[in-house]
Amino acid sequence: MSSTFGKLVRLTTFGESHGAAIGGIIDGFPANFPVDLEKVQMELDRRKPGQSAIVTQRKESDTVQFLSGIFEGKTTGAPIAFSIPNEAQKSADYEHLKEVYRPSHADFTYDKKYGTRDYRGGGRSSARETASRVVAGVLAKHYLESLGIEFSTYVDQVGSIRLNDVSFFMHDAIESNPVRCPDSKTAEQMEELIRSVRKEGDTIGGCIRCMVVNVPIGLGEPVFDKLHADLGKAMLSINAVKGVEFGSGFASVEMRGSEHNDLFNEDGSTQSNHSGGIQGGISNGMPIEFRVAFKPVATLMQAQASINQAGEKVAVEGKGRHDACVVPRAVPIVEAMAALTLLDFYLEFRARR
Amino acid sequence: MSSTFGKLVRLTTFGESHGAAIGGIIDGFPANFPVDLEKVQMELDRRKPGQSAIVTQRKESDTVQFLSGIFEGKTTGAPIAFSIPNEAQKSADYEHLKEVYRPSHADFTYDKKYGTRDYRGGGRSSARETASRVVAGVLAKHYLESLGIEFSTYVDQVGSIRLNDVSFFMHDAIESNPVRCPDSKTAEQMEELIRSVRKEGDTIGGCIRCMVVNVPIGLGEPVFDKLHADLGKAMLSINAVKGVEFGSGFASVEMRGSEHNDLFNEDGSTQSNHSGGIQGGISNGMPIEFRVAFKPVATLMQAQASINQAGEKVAVEGKGRHDACVVPRAVPIVEAMAALTLLDFYLEFRARR
Amino acid sequence: MSSTFGKLVRLTTFGESHGAAIGGIIDGFPANFPVDLEKVQMELDRRKPGQSAIVTQRKESDTVQFLSGIFEGKTTGAPIAFSIPNEAQKSADYEHLKEVYRPSHADFTYDKKYGTRDYRGGGRSSARETASRVVAGVLAKHYLESLGIEFSTYVDQVGSIRLNDVSFFMHDAIESNPVRCPDSKTAEQMEELIRSVRKEGDTIGGCIRCMVVNVPIGLGEPVFDKLHADLGKAMLSINAVKGVEFGSGFASVEMRGSEHNDLFNEDGSTQSNHSGGIQGGISNGMPIEFRVAFKPVATLMQAQASINQAGEKVAVEGKGRHDACVVPRAVPIVEAMAALTLLDFYLEFRARR
Amino acid sequence: MSSTFGKLVRLTTFGESHGAAIGGIIDGFPANFPVDLEKVQMELDRRKPGQSAIVTQRKESDTVQFLSGIFEGKTTGAPIAFSIPNEAQKSADYEHLKEVYRPSHADFTYDKKYGTRDYRGGGRSSARETASRVVAGVLAKHYLESLGIEFSTYVDQVGSIRLNDVSFFMHDAIESNPVRCPDSKTAEQMEELIRSVRKEGDTIGGCIRCMVVNVPIGLGEPVFDKLHADLGKAMLSINAVKGVEFGSGFASVEMRGSEHNDLFNEDGSTQSNHSGGIQGGISNGMPIEFRVAFKPVATLMQAQASINQAGEKVAVEGKGRHDACVVPRAVPIVEAMAALTLLDFYLEFRARR
Repeated sequence: MSSTFGKLVRLTTFGESHGAAIGGIIDGFPANFPVDLEKVQMELDRRKPGQSAIVTQRKESDTVQFLSGIFEGKTTGAPIAFSIPNEAQKSADYEHLKEVYRPSHADFTYDKKYGTRDYRGGGRSSARETASRVVAGVLAKHYLESLGIEFSTYVDQVGSIRLNDVSFFMHDAIESNPVRCPDSKTAEQMEELIRSVRKEGDTIGGCIRCMVVNVPIGLGEPVFDKLHADLGKAMLSINAVKGVEFGSGFASVEMRGSEHNDLFNEDGSTQSNHSGGIQGGISNGMPIEFRVAFKPVATLMQAQASINQAGEKVAVEGKGRHDACVVPRAVPIVEAMAALTLLDFYLEFRARR
Repeated sequence: MSSTFGKLVRLTTFGESHGAAIGGIIDGFPANFPVDLEKVQMELDRRKPGQSAIVTQRKESDTVQFLSGIFEGKTTGAPIAFSIPNEAQKSADYEHLKEVYRPSHADFTYDKKYGTRDYRGGGRSSARETASRVVAGVLAKHYLESLGIEFSTYVDQVGSIRLNDVSFFMHDAIESNPVRCPDSKTAEQMEELIRSVRKEGDTIGGCIRCMVVNVPIGLGEPVFDKLHADLGKAMLSINAVKGVEFGSGFASVEMRGSEHNDLFNEDGSTQSNHSGGIQGGISNGMPIEFRVAFKPVATLMQAQASINQAGEKVAVEGKGRHDACVVPRAVPIVEAMAALTLLDFYLEFRARR
Repeated sequence: MSSTFGKLVRLTTFGESHGAAIGGIIDGFPANFPVDLEKVQMELDRRKPGQSAIVTQRKESDTVQFLSGIFEGKTTGAPIAFSIPNEAQKSADYEHLKEVYRPSHADFTYDKKYGTRDYRGGGRSSARETASRVVAGVLAKHYLESLGIEFSTYVDQVGSIRLNDVSFFMHDAIESNPVRCPDSKTAEQMEELIRSVRKEGDTIGGCIRCMVVNVPIGLGEPVFDKLHADLGKAMLSINAVKGVEFGSGFASVEMRGSEHNDLFNEDGSTQSNHSGGIQGGISNGMPIEFRVAFKPVATLMQAQASINQAGEKVAVEGKGRHDACVVPRAVPIVEAMAALTLLDFYLEFRARR
Repeated sequence: MSSTFGKLVRLTTFGESHGAAIGGIIDGFPANFPVDLEKVQMELDRRKPGQSAIVTQRKESDTVQFLSGIFEGKTTGAPIAFSIPNEAQKSADYEHLKEVYRPSHADFTYDKKYGTRDYRGGGRSSARETASRVVAGVLAKHYLESLGIEFSTYVDQVGSIRLNDVSFFMHDAIESNPVRCPDSKTAEQMEELIRSVRKEGDTIGGCIRCMVVNVPIGLGEPVFDKLHADLGKAMLSINAVKGVEFGSGFASVEMRGSEHNDLFNEDGSTQSNHSGGIQGGISNGMPIEFRVAFKPVATLMQAQASINQAGEKVAVEGKGRHDACVVPRAVPIVEAMAALTLLDFYLEFRARR
């Protein structure tokens, strides 16, 4: 299913970073839901380049245009198509990469798989594709919010600087600094690290934590389509993600069952939440919690040894404008993919009631 | 799609731990492939209870019977159905759990989702379901092996005891001890830990590492169906899994790009493999590498406070026969899910050539 | 998806006519629905061989066994697996066909597609597979009946003998004769025709009409998954079906729009029902009506010229016990596939409400 | 899956007749295939309004723009997005229909299903959506033609005027007249009938026949995804289609098996082709043949009694510009859906080789 995500609500995306436009079609979105176009654009702007000093300085306005499925301000149940024209294309920045395979990019694998590739700016493999996910994800999130479900998604690690607090932080706290880490002290340290790494022409990894509260009990399907299995796939489908963990995650490996088990309160809630809000693949009403690991960006502003299509040694160095750390701009992407996944399970849940 | 896994090769499983049988249907498996029934049974026996002193002592012969799709020793292209009768059912062991929600089990969520549940032995949520995955996965693995692809799957962590070596270990080394950790010294420590934890009526978590070599370049689809996204979903769908990481995984968060990038050799292979054999969601010919985190088993042989359906406080204590650590028996399950995922992508890869 | 039918409720079938068993898995069926096993068996018996003098005299008891998904008489939401052991296998009857391609059977195409085939009794291509569809379809029908939806499915043509009346006939009228044509006079003529055709060692085609009343307004999805598009696919997937038409069907070709349009009553119902209860792919609350054309059975009790695998001329003649006309036994199959399709759309309809 | 068609090659369409644009995304199309944009536009023009005196005189240029997936004249394997701006919108023509349910349209069912609708020009239910299918279908057809597969699709019935000849007619013969019936005498009679029906403000039905030659043996999947089952669904998904038949179709009902069976030649071809090129759901190398029945267009240029949303009686009369018979413009749509279906099965066929 490649460029399509979801079962009952499905997003199909299209577009290369340097083609005419990127965009997508959302099919199966419930009818009669009011769409606040301004708010969608505002959330999309959280992902856009040039928003702060610590992200890439490419200038792309990333203006979304809706082409169908919305009539008189509301969804009609028909497919919602949208496009985001590509404006800031400096394809010449990439001409030198025409026959070069950049290390740890998708140049080599695309070329081998398809026997061809649009080399301009990474083409289809560019993270620019995720802007389409944000558009769709924001609609999904707004729908879930209308049911009382709320999201808190933020940066909790950059390099070895980690936020100690695990809480449901409010939107304003998260947006109070360019790193999107809700603790201002930690955010400052992270920002400083990103700046210093960038000065060296280097890049650094990071982690995003997502919490979702007020999720109804019963979302998720047993066996293969467990709620966290599909959330995990959604996260791993985001560019640069190398790992995902739910609730206690990798730390659970060192724990005893007597310590790890979430004991019940009489109302069915639990005293701890090592399960991350999901038991047996099904939401249990506690906050859904997961963490997503992003590797350092592969494009460096320093020379690296590489090869070209002919297998000859070449030196490659990033031109253009790139991020030194991807997580600040990835926050809305993680949130978008989480929202799309949850809306899909919510509809499936409703189908069998 | 709940109980179905895969696109071109699809496994659909059925069965509760204490019903008549568990089993499944494999649809879309290539025709004319010889099936070695004895070898399938042997691999299935790697998952079965009672195989060693450190696993649950339930006696289940887990004998698989094939019902269709194999004719004169070869697959016919028709659906391959199989069943494994449930023999060792001691349903009485579970009668006391009829109205009780065990902590960190799926009792509560199944009951809330479906308004009913087969409480005997966990019913559909029991890890017994994974025996069906192993049957199908072994067929997939044998098919991939006929193409030269090879698997090395082993325990690399139990509690805080971790194997330092990251290598492609041979089957014999892995099977040389009941823990399925290929280093005998580390295995002994792990075994000791499992024994001591069990004595306390407690349980402990663990990690499994999987490496796959000789995977053709080009498996995996861009955007949503990246190879590691689907592998990740496959792993997260296994009972008790809390996290998954590929290549450098969570460690990549603290790395610089200059250190993390996998530089090319002239033949297109790479000098390091932080990418875990996958770039841009597509296999690059290097070994595919990932790690899967399992939480400690939730059933304890000690009393725990819990609640029942009426929301009243009750004490619950595991009866019957349970594992103190799940990873030794989970090795063939991880391998099975990896093989099913890879075979599916291999067929998709072949479709568009 | 080959051996799987449906989206939210999915039937996957398995089994060859002369293997160990046939059967299937129903996944996604709503939980908490009481299953009347006796009634399921009774409806399955409407398809079984030997039920009357005008159908094949093979003796197969076709006893269905449920293996999972039903607990204490009710569905649990887990996959419902069932099997029907193959009893009356006279595989020796088919030994002479091992290398022969019977005209208008699937022998040739299976062999070419898969490079192998289970030649005993048609293997996977045998209409015996439809028994599994009836089991699943009966569960779906019972569920729909619990919502007030009712089916009337009957033979309305055998050869050139056609029932003139187009009405919603009651179950008893349909079952009052072995042809399953609700008009006793027409049924007698049909029965006579079938007998005479059989005496000649020949076969004859027929048509089945299906009407479904009390279907909620709003089932069916616009564009590709129109309600009649999926019903049509369901019908065309039944062995020997060569055509399907909805409402006015092929007769509409010769009609004027002024004559064909279904004018509204003030309550939204329509004065005529040329639309067959479906407009724009969506049910409009009027009876859903369609007709299914079955070709004459390909197995003849007379010698026919054919070829074998080597491309040599051979004579082939049906042995064993075959139907001279398939429609009397196909009535429950048509009904089953209609019920599965409608239940699937009903759940999808409920998902987006 | 509503607005998505296909498994390995998937078309997702979007757009309302009076919105900003219609269009679609083709995902999974093989890479490295040269796209002749001019030829695509030429084939799209076969569907467009105003092309001859007997079709609707709406002026829409229907110019397709490709947005992604094509680089330097060839497909890249990435999703191919395209849009067709809506130009000739006379939405005012529809203002009078805002609250009116036109007989035998989708107004009533959309309103009831979604609780809202874009009433301008039928919105999503407009046959304008099929232009997107033609764009995708032409790419699929060109790909199949590169494999030697050829299509012959033509009008073989309008009202009661029927073409007697059943042959593979060449493109030029079909395009030699505005009816797209390859026999000029019959075409003239059909044209005359269409003109006279239109003068009366009425409409008339028709039939399209499609033949496809040089299809490889082995396309189609047994059981539910039989080749003709999916082709049938594809046809029934086209606006105004009421029936579909394969090979002998409904005529087979009156035939004997001895007459109907397709006897083999020694090379595996058959002497007759009542099977329509498909046996057991799988192509057998003979021409694939089917017929599609279209009802008369529902929009009449005469007053009809109807109701509005409030259930009050109103008179409705077509304004704007409509077809008196849909089949001449539906020829490329039938061909497009056939090509998309066959390409999908061709890729699936290749996957398991």
